[in-house]
Amino acid sequence: MAKIICVLYDDPVDGMPKVYARDDLPKIEGYADGQTLPTPKGIDFKPGELLGSVSGELGLRKYLTSLGHELVVTSSKDGADSVLDRELHDAEIVISQPFWPAYMTAERIAKAPKLKLIVTAGIGSDHTDLQAASERNITVAEVTFCNSISVAEHVVMMILGLVRNYIPSYQWVVKGGWNIADCVARSYDVEGMHVGTVAAGRIGLAVLRRLKPFDMHLHYFDRHRLPESVEKELNLHWHPTVEDMVKVCDVVTINCPLHPETENLFNANLLSKMKRGAYLVNTARGKIVDRDAIVKALETGQLAGYAGDVWFPQPAPQDHPWRTMPHHGMTPHISGTSLSAQTRYAAGTREILECYFEGRPIRDEYLIVDKGTLAGIGAKSYSKGNATGGSEDAARFKAR
Amino acid sequence: MAKIICVLYDDPVDGMPKVYARDDLPKIEGYADGQTLPTPKGIDFKPGELLGSVSGELGLRKYLTSLGHELVVTSSKDGADSVLDRELHDAEIVISQPFWPAYMTAERIAKAPKLKLIVTAGIGSDHTDLQAASERNITVAEVTFCNSISVAEHVVMMILGLVRNYIPSYQWVVKGGWNIADCVARSYDVEGMHVGTVAAGRIGLAVLRRLKPFDMHLHYFDRHRLPESVEKELNLHWHPTVEDMVKVCDVVTINCPLHPETENLFNANLLSKMKRGAYLVNTARGKIVDRDAIVKALETGQLAGYAGDVWFPQPAPQDHPWRTMPHHGMTPHISGTSLSAQTRYAAGTREILECYFEGRPIRDEYLIVDKGTLAGIGAKSYSKGNATGGSEDAARFKAR
Repeated sequence: MAKIICVLYDDPVDGMPKVYARDDLPKIEGYADGQTLPTPKGIDFKPGELLGSVSGELGLRKYLTSLGHELVVTSSKDGADSVLDRELHDAEIVISQPFWPAYMTAERIAKAPKLKLIVTAGIGSDHTDLQAASERNITVAEVTFCNSISVAEHVVMMILGLVRNYIPSYQWVVKGGWNIADCVARSYDVEGMHVGTVAAGRIGLAVLRRLKPFDMHLHYFDRHRLPESVEKELNLHWHPTVEDMVKVCDVVTINCPLHPETENLFNANLLSKMKRGAYLVNTARGKIVDRDAIVKALETGQLAGYAGDVWFPQPAPQDHPWRTMPHHGMTPHISGTSLSAQTRYAAGTREILECYFEGRPIRDEYLIVDKGTLAGIGAKSYSKGNATGGSEDAARFKAR
Repeated sequence: MAKIICVLYDDPVDGMPKVYARDDLPKIEGYADGQTLPTPKGIDFKPGELLGSVSGELGLRKYLTSLGHELVVTSSKDGADSVLDRELHDAEIVISQPFWPAYMTAERIAKAPKLKLIVTAGIGSDHTDLQAASERNITVAEVTFCNSISVAEHVVMMILGLVRNYIPSYQWVVKGGWNIADCVARSYDVEGMHVGTVAAGRIGLAVLRRLKPFDMHLHYFDRHRLPESVEKELNLHWHPTVEDMVKVCDVVTINCPLHPETENLFNANLLSKMKRGAYLVNTARGKIVDRDAIVKALETGQLAGYAGDVWFPQPAPQDHPWRTMPHHGMTPHISGTSLSAQTRYAAGTREILECYFEGRPIRDEYLIVDKGTLAGIGAKSYSKGNATGGSEDAARFKAR
């Protein structure tokens, strides 16, 4: 019998919804690259329900307890007296999400001698020390593609919101004004602008495809060049370096994973190479940018706006400067956990657990670390090493 | 010598910008249907400047005074003691904008015996009583296409913002929380949803084109069927009535002009035919929907969200219920007055004035009423009559 720790974010302040805003979810047939949707043998939830918070339990309890396993679900993940730390000593599986990550540092992994599987119910396993996991022969898996389109939609929304100055204009409505000039003195159309993505993987390419009919000029940097047919179809301009790309872009969107090579990529130096008044949207990982350099660039006007939903650490402390810096359009880390995405990542997590317990192989595209090495299709984006440093600061967030 | 009254919105609270957020505007080559950009002989402003507010004067002063004309620029437009009413008696031309409309009612037109030309520096001339204008042989012109793409971008932004629950999630950031479940309990992906536009003219079709790569199912209602090639390219589903369309849509966007046939189209009855939890975005005109029925539909959950930037009257009074209703993402009327749009409508207004003063014909596509009748390509969307009723309420807005 295995012990599974599932670290999930807190329930809504007013409890779980009794009536949801909508009655159903649209039917999706598959992913853009032909990958199939998650294929668990069964699910114990209704698509559209809130599954990612504590009460939702990713819809896993019935399945796991029916097999005799022990399921611990908690949002308590940071600080020495966390439930995660208390329960870790005999856990076989730890599941968490990028939105509310269980930072699986080398120290934690060392304290969990029975640990065999770390699952990200979502995409992005940088909250796990991949080096430490591979040395201990722990499998690290994530639900590849489950929320890539969710994030791509979020990126386009934020680009439009920043460039058109949406939120400040909304605020004039609520304040009772009709200050059109105050709203539009910073409002532009995206038409004709140059937009570039750092990395053109599942998310980056989906963003480019969605921006194409806006008549924007499309740029990308990626270590892997896209097929010529795709470059032609979307009229893409590839750049050999990030710096080469950001120099010509009005809007830059970051869609690469966090690993030691991308950590702190957008520092003061790179920001200074951007066009004055450019917009930066980062839904990838907070540590890819230099926190304080972003604030300064907004204050000086070097950046006209910054948006995204990734922070470091997570949850972000109440005094995190991004909460109050000018011209931002931040959300908490939610882009990949829409109710639509939750259905897919809950089903994907169930699929991974079914494979694990039934001794069947986990899909290649889900594997990040396997058999002691960076493995599978899913791992091609990562470099070996550790990007969890500093995560202990998450304990500074005070729960309500 | 002619007297021209130019009614423009107020300057920013802190005065005109000394430094703009950006240094230039992207270069646009033309419009999607092949129409050319405005072609004035000259302009006296720098693209990207704030032209639509009082100090901006649409960049017209130098040109008009050099010809010896009198230019009166004011934001004072409503109530008996307005500058508009004071100056109207000997005016030959009145210019205003949908964002801050000079309501040219039959009464006002009767008080302006010398009036020959009413120009909308933007698109949408419903603030003018077209019937009264045609009876007086007054020409009504607008700058067709100048901000259609601006509005289409705004629509897509608002659809994504409502469906993904952007603004409430942003507010959790500002409040210092990390309440992911509170943010996402109402957050969905647009992927796979059915979206329909009421009218598929310049704006509606541009919205459909922009939503296509989001893998949404696209619907439209229009009196004029689109070419079969366009329907096939975008996989469009045409509906013979608005009701037929809204029944199957998760998202509805209104992109028709206001005229007597569309006034109050979205009343309680039509709203009740929509899917529970649908989203409605109206950037067309406030009077196309029933103000109080919208509020009620949001309160009962029949609508999951409402956004847009058109109100009636404009400016909207401080106690307008849309400022405080639940699940809204409203802006003041700004979608068509981004700095990008301002450059085009200022140039277009200049072009119209040059034609008028030089005795050259105004472009067909700009003409709404000419030689006593609804005229030109631009007029095809209107029906004869008057949609200005109730505009006197605009005087209830208290200037700051």
